[in-house]
Amino acid sequence: MINRVDHIGIAVSSLEESIPLFEKLLGTRLNKREVVDSQKVEAAFFKVGGGTIELLAPTSHDSQIQKFIKKKKEGVHHIALNVSSIEQEMKRLEKNGFEFVSKTPIIGANNKKIVFLHPKSTNGVLVEICEDT
Amino acid sequence: MINRVDHIGIAVSSLEESIPLFEKLLGTRLNKREVVDSQKVEAAFFKVGGGTIELLAPTSHDSQIQKFIKKKKEGVHHIALNVSSIEQEMKRLEKNGFEFVSKTPIIGANNKKIVFLHPKSTNGVLVEICEDT
Repeated sequence: MINRVDHIGIAVSSLEESIPLFEKLLGTRLNKREVVDSQKVEAAFFKVGGGTIELLAPTSHDSQIQKFIKKKKEGVHHIALNVSSIEQEMKRLEKNGFEFVSKTPIIGANNKKIVFLHPKSTNGVLVEICEDT
Repeated sequence: MINRVDHIGIAVSSLEESIPLFEKLLGTRLNKREVVDSQKVEAAFFKVGGGTIELLAPTSHDSQIQKFIKKKKEGVHHIALNVSSIEQEMKRLEKNGFEFVSKTPIIGANNKKIVFLHPKSTNGVLVEICEDT
């Protein structure tokens, strides 16, 4: 079951430049920063109402975020849907013809189990599904 | 004051193709459809937790959504932040150096007062601010 939009992920080149920009935009202070080695990114989180906006900056030249920025420039990278059980949700989505970027979930930021759907099956939108652990 | 992420807007070529796709993806039925003449789009709304995902299809060849799809393909078009007072929020954001696509709010879907920030001032993210009326 899909509970809510968990966060919106935004690809940025530099957290040092984008954190102050988003603090001004959102009228709120940064909630926290976290290096996520599994994805070669550093993430910065802003709480907005019950949701989260997550800035993602590459920590390596071969990070997917670096490749994304090179190809598409900075901007919205993915939207994440919070689910009760990622395994059940993957089964439901596979039955409905959706494809995943990886076959099994990985551990992402905030220690969540995450998996990405392939954007070719979702109208060009990179969709993450995530489960709190 | 920014209250919450109001919705995520996704540009699609055809609501007839994308509504069934998003119904399967989100595991929920379409909430409603609405033609928004001021933006030359037809919108389709899905409720996800307390938030909304909004599909936007062009109703005219000179719609901004048509131009967006031609340039960037289907995908996330904008994120919308719900505010208590759009006029106050525009003043706050202008003071902080943000630029707007139009000088005054227009009436968008669901009869909301909306205005877009120029993406060049927001790391490439097209940000809408909106006020319920």
